Amino acid sequence: MISFSIDSAITQIAAHAGEVMAGGRTVIAIGGDHTVALPMLRSVVREHGPVALVHFDAHLDTWDTYFGAPVTHGTPFRRAAEEGLFLDDASMHIGIRGPLYGASDLTQDAELGFRIVPAMDLERGGVDGVVERISERVGDAPLYISIDIDVLDPAHAPGTGTPEAGGLTSRELLGILRGLAGKHLVGADVVEVSPAYDHAEMTTIAAAHTCYELLALMALRS
Amino acid sequence: MISFSIDSAITQIAAHAGEVMAGGRTVIAIGGDHTVALPMLRSVVREHGPVALVHFDAHLDTWDTYFGAPVTHGTPFRRAAEEGLFLDDASMHIGIRGPLYGASDLTQDAELGFRIVPAMDLERGGVDGVVERISERVGDAPLYISIDIDVLDPAHAPGTGTPEAGGLTSRELLGILRGLAGKHLVGADVVEVSPAYDHAEMTTIAAAHTCYELLALMALRS
Amino acid sequence: MISFSIDSAITQIAAHAGEVMAGGRTVIAIGGDHTVALPMLRSVVREHGPVALVHFDAHLDTWDTYFGAPVTHGTPFRRAAEEGLFLDDASMHIGIRGPLYGASDLTQDAELGFRIVPAMDLERGGVDGVVERISERVGDAPLYISIDIDVLDPAHAPGTGTPEAGGLTSRELLGILRGLAGKHLVGADVVEVSPAYDHAEMTTIAAAHTCYELLALMALRS
Amino acid sequence: MISFSIDSAITQIAAHAGEVMAGGRTVIAIGGDHTVALPMLRSVVREHGPVALVHFDAHLDTWDTYFGAPVTHGTPFRRAAEEGLFLDDASMHIGIRGPLYGASDLTQDAELGFRIVPAMDLERGGVDGVVERISERVGDAPLYISIDIDVLDPAHAPGTGTPEAGGLTSRELLGILRGLAGKHLVGADVVEVSPAYDHAEMTTIAAAHTCYELLALMALRS
Amino acid sequence: MISFSIDSAITQIAAHAGEVMAGGRTVIAIGGDHTVALPMLRSVVREHGPVALVHFDAHLDTWDTYFGAPVTHGTPFRRAAEEGLFLDDASMHIGIRGPLYGASDLTQDAELGFRIVPAMDLERGGVDGVVERISERVGDAPLYISIDIDVLDPAHAPGTGTPEAGGLTSRELLGILRGLAGKHLVGADVVEVSPAYDHAEMTTIAAAHTCYELLALMALRS
Amino acid sequence: MISFSIDSAITQIAAHAGEVMAGGRTVIAIGGDHTVALPMLRSVVREHGPVALVHFDAHLDTWDTYFGAPVTHGTPFRRAAEEGLFLDDASMHIGIRGPLYGASDLTQDAELGFRIVPAMDLERGGVDGVVERISERVGDAPLYISIDIDVLDPAHAPGTGTPEAGGLTSRELLGILRGLAGKHLVGADVVEVSPAYDHAEMTTIAAAHTCYELLALMALRS
Repeated sequence: MISFSIDSAITQIAAHAGEVMAGGRTVIAIGGDHTVALPMLRSVVREHGPVALVHFDAHLDTWDTYFGAPVTHGTPFRRAAEEGLFLDDASMHIGIRGPLYGASDLTQDAELGFRIVPAMDLERGGVDGVVERISERVGDAPLYISIDIDVLDPAHAPGTGTPEAGGLTSRELLGILRGLAGKHLVGADVVEVSPAYDHAEMTTIAAAHTCYELLALMALRS
Repeated sequence: MISFSIDSAITQIAAHAGEVMAGGRTVIAIGGDHTVALPMLRSVVREHGPVALVHFDAHLDTWDTYFGAPVTHGTPFRRAAEEGLFLDDASMHIGIRGPLYGASDLTQDAELGFRIVPAMDLERGGVDGVVERISERVGDAPLYISIDIDVLDPAHAPGTGTPEAGGLTSRELLGILRGLAGKHLVGADVVEVSPAYDHAEMTTIAAAHTCYELLALMALRS
Repeated sequence: MISFSIDSAITQIAAHAGEVMAGGRTVIAIGGDHTVALPMLRSVVREHGPVALVHFDAHLDTWDTYFGAPVTHGTPFRRAAEEGLFLDDASMHIGIRGPLYGASDLTQDAELGFRIVPAMDLERGGVDGVVERISERVGDAPLYISIDIDVLDPAHAPGTGTPEAGGLTSRELLGILRGLAGKHLVGADVVEVSPAYDHAEMTTIAAAHTCYELLALMALRS
Repeated sequence: MISFSIDSAITQIAAHAGEVMAGGRTVIAIGGDHTVALPMLRSVVREHGPVALVHFDAHLDTWDTYFGAPVTHGTPFRRAAEEGLFLDDASMHIGIRGPLYGASDLTQDAELGFRIVPAMDLERGGVDGVVERISERVGDAPLYISIDIDVLDPAHAPGTGTPEAGGLTSRELLGILRGLAGKHLVGADVVEVSPAYDHAEMTTIAAAHTCYELLALMALRS
Repeated sequence: MISFSIDSAITQIAAHAGEVMAGGRTVIAIGGDHTVALPMLRSVVREHGPVALVHFDAHLDTWDTYFGAPVTHGTPFRRAAEEGLFLDDASMHIGIRGPLYGASDLTQDAELGFRIVPAMDLERGGVDGVVERISERVGDAPLYISIDIDVLDPAHAPGTGTPEAGGLTSRELLGILRGLAGKHLVGADVVEVSPAYDHAEMTTIAAAHTCYELLALMALRS
Repeated sequence: MISFSIDSAITQIAAHAGEVMAGGRTVIAIGGDHTVALPMLRSVVREHGPVALVHFDAHLDTWDTYFGAPVTHGTPFRRAAEEGLFLDDASMHIGIRGPLYGASDLTQDAELGFRIVPAMDLERGGVDGVVERISERVGDAPLYISIDIDVLDPAHAPGTGTPEAGGLTSRELLGILRGLAGKHLVGADVVEVSPAYDHAEMTTIAAAHTCYELLALMALRS
């Protein structure tokens, strides 16, 4: 049911995700803004214990509050880190390039235990370089993958709310995911697709292919 | 400040509108969804007493709740009527044509004291016919005009969230407003413009011209 | 099943429409190009006997052949007339304004028994004038309504393949249909919606509301 | 040849139009901004003597200067009036609704001999009312028709540079032109189509149909 | 002449291409869907004998039938292989990434003699790697290049009917073609451009530049 | 103030840029077409002496005249070279791929002292390769960077007037600029953004990020 309040929405999501995952099943959440990641992570951790996190995004999403609010699409991974949902030395952001409010954005993020692979790093190490850095950090831990579609360049994903130039191509994103074959994926989300800004359904198609790769990762492991 | 909660948003709007109107001034709210009308009406009535209402919209917006919530863009005029913000026999909807959930949508609306000028009536009486019906109903009472841009046909206002075919042309809307010259306008809103769905800024232009006519009505009277 | 040949497509449509209508039921075909009208008319006539026709369109669609082919979206009503599917003095086009290849387009159309209400006539008699002319011609005969969405002005229905300026508004089309309450509607189609050219789903919305009015006409009679 | 200077462009246009019209022929200029009307009028008057003017536009285009420049798309009819290109009591604007810089916009326009039919007048007299007012003013004088496509509402002509809400429908424009059958049309222009802002070619189609009606007027008379 | 039947269309294409190529000339077909490749290949082979094939596409297009039909845009290279139009060990697909109906899509394709360079391989070997693989396979044999514009990523070619994420950039495609300088190109097609889905003509521009590179290859060799 | 003449426009720009830079300050011009570069370079050189030039563009912009005119968006760097505004052996174009009128386009460009890094070179040396070639050529000379947004591929910057396939990604452009940290940047322009052709503001966002990188380069040095 559609909710007009963030609090009731995340309660609904956590409850429903919990039901779906009961007994150790895995789940992918599709749609909505990045606030969705918080109730998803809570449910996944309840079922599978603390997780490694690979977070694809143009932005860190680890602010303390956003326009004064603690639970929004700019804060989910701060809340999740505070709640102890992540394994030590196992969480990372891929594709970061958004603007910073200040240097503390970076220092606080690091203090919370996250590591960053900036989008620009794709220019040097390519897909394989990123896959290697992910593998080193997450190993075979239970893994949650959270994908904000704005990790893609606006050329590939115009249909999103806070686009930033200099992002990944869809081929790079799909290639990195494919490189994670064998990992222990226990949950995922693909969020921030906003069809009103899309053209020729290209963002939707990229998101759908992304979900397909995530499903393939889950199927390979099981 | 941007708010992530409807309750705090309407508190902010009412407070700010109250400040602007203090001492009997008039105000036009621009933007946002139709929830805006409720805090605006509360502030206007606090300053000017109960008002006549001319509400331009494809939809009645007098449901009791919308997806279970009492304060949303589908319910403002129900709440306002319950709070006694409208004068007796002085509130009306213009341009109605949206879908109904059931016959009670219409009967409850009538019981709350509203009268309806369907969009199709423009085909017979034209602009002058509508102006006459408004004049008869609102007389010289303090008047609040609430304009959901979806009162316009999607051809004239594609940039909105719940478009309905068979609406008004922008010329008809501007003509009706111009026909209200001399009325005692004390407040207004122009809402539900959603630029992401717009083309060539046509919805924005129509809304801007609408605001211009409202300002002219206020200027003429003062 | 999708067909790559016009002949097999119209066979499929006629067969399926025949099944749906068996026992005197009525049917509305949605989508496709105007070729659809021919198998629909064949099926309707098989079930209900020859019909009156009210055909909303910018174009006559009564050419003998189109690029040499006899069964296309430019010829359905010629074929249907030749097959005797229409009652005498009971078929008409509404909204015509498209370009002519020559004067014979008009004279042959008249010889086939059609009468024309040009789009420009809406400027004088309005919706009620058109409703009256339809009523006079079709009376209480079994009626088939065929609606090419390009009867609407491109402002109201950009999402179509052969748009022509100077068309109907969506309110006029809905108003005319509503004026036919009580008629003996036995079948209908709404065709030529082409989403790739649409904006903000306005053509789709106009077509959906059109279907709603047709359903209401059928429900009223039964 | 493309020109990067207004002066050389209007010299080219006047020269070429003069060639085309030599010997009393008529001409329609298509495309460009409204500056085009000035060299066109000069050439037409050289061939046919002073003319009556029917100018369809959202704006008067009779400013003295525009951003300090005397020959621009906001001033052609001021320059033409000063040069004595118009017959007395025979020039008029149709469809006016644009914003004014001040009351002098209107008084100076009247002093230059123009009369105005505001777009809103279509709501009362309709197409026939406008045709009658044109007939009264231009009689059988040699007539120049200048059509800024922004006379149409943005719903019908989004593809233009200075759109204004509350304009004509394409059917109204075509109907008015058709009502001028028999007039002594000696020249015309259709200007201000800007494809980059268009959608589904609707502005282009409206302009093309407009040209077709103008051609028909010329053909009827000759 | 426009045809409403696939059979007559391919007959027309083969006949016309045959005329153009008579005497050993080369030809590039532009536009239409991928069905065009079949009559093109037949004509090319009649003139030049069996050819090597470099086929750029997101999809294999070697299904046996598509919705039951043997000659469609999903089957041309199956038909061509069955007809013996390709040299042994000389046909290949570049850019493949579309969805599969099943594993037999791949095995049957291989049995027909095709080799695949998936789009993802560009991430490792780059343009030069692909050029080398093409050179090894086609050598100096008479070569036909068939380019479905959906080989490009939707970011670069939104204007097509079956877009797939993860494709080539326009620079990669142009770079690969340029790398084929000196090859014995005897015919080519560039197909599946669908302007209605395009934006800012970017697909058209990419296709036009592609044709320019193909022409340059032909000019270099002759 | 808006100007209707190129001559008065460049006079205004040079005058205003001169004021802003007085005393050795640096400046970035944003918007307009590439003609802007000429008055900018004149002002920069007046303040800082002759400069090295790094010019990002799909086109050389060193024609002698364009449609017969000497000062246009196709000629600024020819004029600037003739006026001695560039240091010897220090000017270069990055991203070139546009069509040529003839071989003399290239030879004359070389004679004027420019060197070219074609867009296709990014496929081999990548961002770092281009940064190295720039560093070698400009050293620590006072540097002017001129960025025509069409250096980006149409996928990344559809909102421009003369797009060419095969361009840079926004990440490549931002990466190259970031690689110039420490250079002696004294002035810059970012031109040829044309919002009417843009989608989802992606061109505007790319241009804004580009300006941000240029500002960062200036801040780093000062």
